[in-house]
Amino acid sequence: MTNLHVVLIHYPVVNKNGEVIASAVTNLDLHDISRAAKTFGVRSFYVVTPLDDQRVFVDRIVGYWVKGAGAKYNPMRDEALKLISIKASLDEVVDEICADCGTRPEVVVTSARPRDRGLSYSDFHQMLKSGRPYLLALGTAWGLSEDFIAEADHILDPIVGDTDYNHLSVRSAAAIMLDRLMGCRTGTA
Amino acid sequence: MTNLHVVLIHYPVVNKNGEVIASAVTNLDLHDISRAAKTFGVRSFYVVTPLDDQRVFVDRIVGYWVKGAGAKYNPMRDEALKLISIKASLDEVVDEICADCGTRPEVVVTSARPRDRGLSYSDFHQMLKSGRPYLLALGTAWGLSEDFIAEADHILDPIVGDTDYNHLSVRSAAAIMLDRLMGCRTGTA
Repeated sequence: MTNLHVVLIHYPVVNKNGEVIASAVTNLDLHDISRAAKTFGVRSFYVVTPLDDQRVFVDRIVGYWVKGAGAKYNPMRDEALKLISIKASLDEVVDEICADCGTRPEVVVTSARPRDRGLSYSDFHQMLKSGRPYLLALGTAWGLSEDFIAEADHILDPIVGDTDYNHLSVRSAAAIMLDRLMGCRTGTA
Repeated sequence: MTNLHVVLIHYPVVNKNGEVIASAVTNLDLHDISRAAKTFGVRSFYVVTPLDDQRVFVDRIVGYWVKGAGAKYNPMRDEALKLISIKASLDEVVDEICADCGTRPEVVVTSARPRDRGLSYSDFHQMLKSGRPYLLALGTAWGLSEDFIAEADHILDPIVGDTDYNHLSVRSAAAIMLDRLMGCRTGTA
């Protein structure tokens, strides 16, 4: 069991005009990020939305794959999707990790935009070795709100390629982040 | 312009019983992989399916984002999705790259299962520096058929985490592979 937890945030995030919204849950976010979390040994994967009907929606999807017909059809999905817990707010997530681990997790947020006090992947990788719990927060829609980012303990550096295009999906960004932090990098450039 | 091309294969792939099938195109594969390809400077992204109606389906999606209302709604999607070309077979892809670049590309296939003659990410990274064209082939459904894999020039090592679970989505695997091969790794563990 590792000490890295992941949370996918649907509120507070911004839309394309920069307004704070609650985004809708995307089915494939649940599948892709839980499968990556399972591959790289993430301890738990939280999905946060304050909207009651969206929490019911997530619960139905997860239930199908963990307890319903999906568990028989594809047991590998069961293993991944049972990492998911649904919460109404970040505070609920932090409280649960605190209760489980005995320590409040440090919250590490992600942003596609470079920041002054950015945390590098190598530094975060080293910090994870301390054993204390960390919670990596991923934003949906056009990203986490500035107020949410300002309250975090750390801001992880954005993922950049050799181009000036940085519009990865949250599914792709999550996969790359977990590989950089937890992947077996033997023989890799 | 780089010398790495990506192709997403919908035939010949296998289903959960190991039978060779033509899989259906998944809309988010087109979005996620084209966005990752654009981020990491991939030269072109081919989508291969022998099914006429599936090629029409891909053409409609790409057309919406590149020429239709989507291009106005989100110009960043236009930039990514215009990397996509739709072909009926791998041969058509190889012929087009050959015509564009003057050299037949070497085909590098991916598989979630370790192989005897696996190509490491660091070796592939070095090979890309030669300037000759390479075509990275990704399988949908339960992966590329064994015949298809046997005919390739190279088989890339699978992505592994610190666990024995290796069931990433093709969208997540593509993102991680492109980051390992083309990402700016400064400051990364």
